[in-house]
Amino acid sequence: MTNCREFRLKERPTGAPTPATFELVETPLPTPGEGEVLCRTLWLSLDPYMRGRISAAKGYTRSVEPGETMVGECVGEVTESRHPRFRAGDIVVGGGGWRSHFALPGEALRKIDPKAAPISTALGILGMPGFTAWVGLMEIAVPRAGETVVMGAATGAVGAVAGQLAKLEGCRVIGVAGGPDKCRYAVEELGFDICLDRHAPDLETKLAAACPDGIDVYLELVGGPVTAAVLPLLNDHARIPVIGGIAHYNATELPPGPDRTPQLMRQILVKRLKLEGMIITDHGARRPVFEARVGALLRSGRLHYKEDVVEGLERAPEAFVGMLEGRNFGKLLVKVAA
Amino acid sequence: MTNCREFRLKERPTGAPTPATFELVETPLPTPGEGEVLCRTLWLSLDPYMRGRISAAKGYTRSVEPGETMVGECVGEVTESRHPRFRAGDIVVGGGGWRSHFALPGEALRKIDPKAAPISTALGILGMPGFTAWVGLMEIAVPRAGETVVMGAATGAVGAVAGQLAKLEGCRVIGVAGGPDKCRYAVEELGFDICLDRHAPDLETKLAAACPDGIDVYLELVGGPVTAAVLPLLNDHARIPVIGGIAHYNATELPPGPDRTPQLMRQILVKRLKLEGMIITDHGARRPVFEARVGALLRSGRLHYKEDVVEGLERAPEAFVGMLEGRNFGKLLVKVAA
Repeated sequence: MTNCREFRLKERPTGAPTPATFELVETPLPTPGEGEVLCRTLWLSLDPYMRGRISAAKGYTRSVEPGETMVGECVGEVTESRHPRFRAGDIVVGGGGWRSHFALPGEALRKIDPKAAPISTALGILGMPGFTAWVGLMEIAVPRAGETVVMGAATGAVGAVAGQLAKLEGCRVIGVAGGPDKCRYAVEELGFDICLDRHAPDLETKLAAACPDGIDVYLELVGGPVTAAVLPLLNDHARIPVIGGIAHYNATELPPGPDRTPQLMRQILVKRLKLEGMIITDHGARRPVFEARVGALLRSGRLHYKEDVVEGLERAPEAFVGMLEGRNFGKLLVKVAA
Repeated sequence: MTNCREFRLKERPTGAPTPATFELVETPLPTPGEGEVLCRTLWLSLDPYMRGRISAAKGYTRSVEPGETMVGECVGEVTESRHPRFRAGDIVVGGGGWRSHFALPGEALRKIDPKAAPISTALGILGMPGFTAWVGLMEIAVPRAGETVVMGAATGAVGAVAGQLAKLEGCRVIGVAGGPDKCRYAVEELGFDICLDRHAPDLETKLAAACPDGIDVYLELVGGPVTAAVLPLLNDHARIPVIGGIAHYNATELPPGPDRTPQLMRQILVKRLKLEGMIITDHGARRPVFEARVGALLRSGRLHYKEDVVEGLERAPEAFVGMLEGRNFGKLLVKVAA
């Protein structure tokens, strides 16, 4: 008989997590209760927000406690259903966690059509990251043709979608990514106008040269030196959806001084900037619009995506650790079963 | 024959300006050209934004250069008109500068009705500061009944109006002001629920106790320790119109570290805060709404104001220097002539 394998948080990391932050545990298969659905996991999504969930700092939702199963979105195949809307063989997406099998209430699952798009896209361009890109760019930043949009993490799961959407809106799109391969991909495959290497020692100068008309929209995904290079170039009335700050997720202390907060506040005032925090779970009502529009663009070949696939649940911890260091290239996915 | 007296910027201040930053110059009376109107100044408004205008740092409009006349809003009496809409004896408001007489194109002046309200209010509650409070609170923050609104500079020209408007919207209003007299006035005259002394060593604790349900709206006028005390108390979806930061206006360098910018950005994300910079000159189209609503509230006795009047143009520099140290109590005005 098959057991369920799952990763639990072993101990809260101080600074960067390591594979030993997590512990692989074998348990009996979960038994679906009334209204629940049992699935075997096919794909597990690894995303930067998970670093916040294993931190003790108060976030927008409760943290994973040591000993608890790691949270995460999965694509699974239904193996047993006690919910009228699902039956064995259905492909679904839901918050299964870092595990080989999961049982969830039917209400917590969405059925996906394997003929409409590869099922893994339900965790990427058609899933939470793509939806985040859509809402952040199209509904919060609201770019206009001719504006300059800067995207840190240009080849990441959110940045790649948002940058392509901005191009389709007629914007000039400048990416920042880690290393020449990612930069080449952003320009040649995603159609960004320019993509700069974030490791370049003269990033500020290069970004200024790439944005001769200033910056109108900046999706805050990364923080750190990229954001520092963007701020002086922002135009009046620029919009900054604040979605992430991966450069700081492993930090154990604040960066050294001076305290640049008054400088940021002065920029907000003088340039009438709009900064707005965004968490995608607030925007569920907009999902049908996102799915219709981005689904159509994907099917018509006007949007591209890249997946970075790791084989086997047991490799999830090292892949997650690497992602926080920028080692993934494309949407990071764990292929848990075929 | 009367001469015109005016203050010019003598030299850009490093840190706090002093009276010697400005120079009193006597010139012949200006001669109004075609379409222009000559006025004698009755009231000159002194406002914190003027500190930015004498700084070399790039702001939202050009700086006053050494040797140029100081900018400022005035209420004046028309003494000679070469514009069809104005005649001698009219009372007008416009950007006359720190001078005893000014000539401006009629298009740059607004006529005011001395019977509707004391004419000095055209520089305060019915002028730029009141309009700033209206737009910042009512159109950017959009407070809802039952929400908690915090106002730094609670008895200042903007904070006093915004706080009273928030009370009229049914909000709980907590002020922060400098010293017991201002705090007492904010509660007893302006109707704030609580007003805390910003000099209190335990401001953070006191503010937390005064805001048991957190903070939903914070008008950023001051920066520094008041803002630092507010940030941890902000609720999800709080709105922060960024209007000023007087605590930093005289600073010659950024505060010591650590750099708290990543902390602020994380708060924006986790709490889905909205920060929006505001400069009142962008919002001219809303002036009729402001004048109608705030004018009616003032006439019906539902809004109160306090003026801090300095007699004589020659005292403008010392009054301005004192304002930046928080020494004024109420809207700071110079009575230039009776």
